[in-house]
Amino acid sequence: MHTVAEPIQRLIDALVRLPGVGPKSASRLAFYLLRAPEDQVQELAAAIGELKANIVYCSRCQNLSISDPCSICQDATRDQSIICVVEEPLDVVAIERTGAYHGLYHVLHGVINPVEGVGPDDLRIAQLLDRQKREPVEEILIATNPTLEGEATAMYLARLLRPAGVRVTRLARGLPVGGDLEYADEVTLSRALEGRRDL
Amino acid sequence: MHTVAEPIQRLIDALVRLPGVGPKSASRLAFYLLRAPEDQVQELAAAIGELKANIVYCSRCQNLSISDPCSICQDATRDQSIICVVEEPLDVVAIERTGAYHGLYHVLHGVINPVEGVGPDDLRIAQLLDRQKREPVEEILIATNPTLEGEATAMYLARLLRPAGVRVTRLARGLPVGGDLEYADEVTLSRALEGRRDL
Repeated sequence: MHTVAEPIQRLIDALVRLPGVGPKSASRLAFYLLRAPEDQVQELAAAIGELKANIVYCSRCQNLSISDPCSICQDATRDQSIICVVEEPLDVVAIERTGAYHGLYHVLHGVINPVEGVGPDDLRIAQLLDRQKREPVEEILIATNPTLEGEATAMYLARLLRPAGVRVTRLARGLPVGGDLEYADEVTLSRALEGRRDL
Repeated sequence: MHTVAEPIQRLIDALVRLPGVGPKSASRLAFYLLRAPEDQVQELAAAIGELKANIVYCSRCQNLSISDPCSICQDATRDQSIICVVEEPLDVVAIERTGAYHGLYHVLHGVINPVEGVGPDDLRIAQLLDRQKREPVEEILIATNPTLEGEATAMYLARLLRPAGVRVTRLARGLPVGGDLEYADEVTLSRALEGRRDL
């Protein structure tokens, strides 16, 4: 049986392994790329191929960065007394976009999720506890998503951090429950930052 | 303002240029690739980068292939008296999958679509007329999609080809109107092939 030419099939096979890409959209993308300008195609290939080469984890806040420490951790003008704890690097981008926060960050790289087998040891929690001991932290603002797992992770962290005497806060309930922090608009996120409450 | 690290932003920018990929899904894909195994990421980059390097148009049927002529045109056991005209390379794959057709193909690479500015000269129609003159063709089966543009293109081709005395047929109306040939199931496509009628 005749199938599609091998280089095309190879790309379709690589594309269907991506989340949210089925066989039909993989085919569409492959044939789109076949007709796209060569420089656009090569730029995409290079962006994928070189993605990880220059990316490191910041040893302080655990965010993905091109330098260690990252640009935020290196910035002495930022408020060193508050750490905002988020699930993912994109959450840092979302909060920075509000312009309403000037402290530091800590990226967990996930949430506690027993159903998917993600426990506290799979997240960057030990590094957070370490920072709380070494750094002049007065407040830890837990900005995990307002989902079941995000709330459970916030509770877990609060129980670990409070005994050390640090103020533990949570983003205000301006966020729609069940929503995703990364998709929130600037105004909603700004209000949630202003109205943060002790946990 | 702090944004996402440059190599990640570069990939997001390259991904949003793809059809059907918005900023949110581009971000999701980029962060998925950051955590994916390095060999999977490099395989995807290579599949994209090398996509066009080995792909040529078959000078006979105009299909995309790794050889010229393509494997179907090279196959002497195939019925040389019938040419099935399709819009896209994926349509060849769909028809081959039925196992009900053993003739040759001709790929137009599109349909006549005045709204999008696609005229007959933008398609591989001249090459089809040339084949009809040079090759021992008895029947030309027009398998464009059962859409407005596909039907119009079929009518246009029929008017060009019939004066030369060749039998011009069309896939039977087993295909759901408004549908896409490439998505049809094997049974429907097989029936449409069997029930083809003179145009």
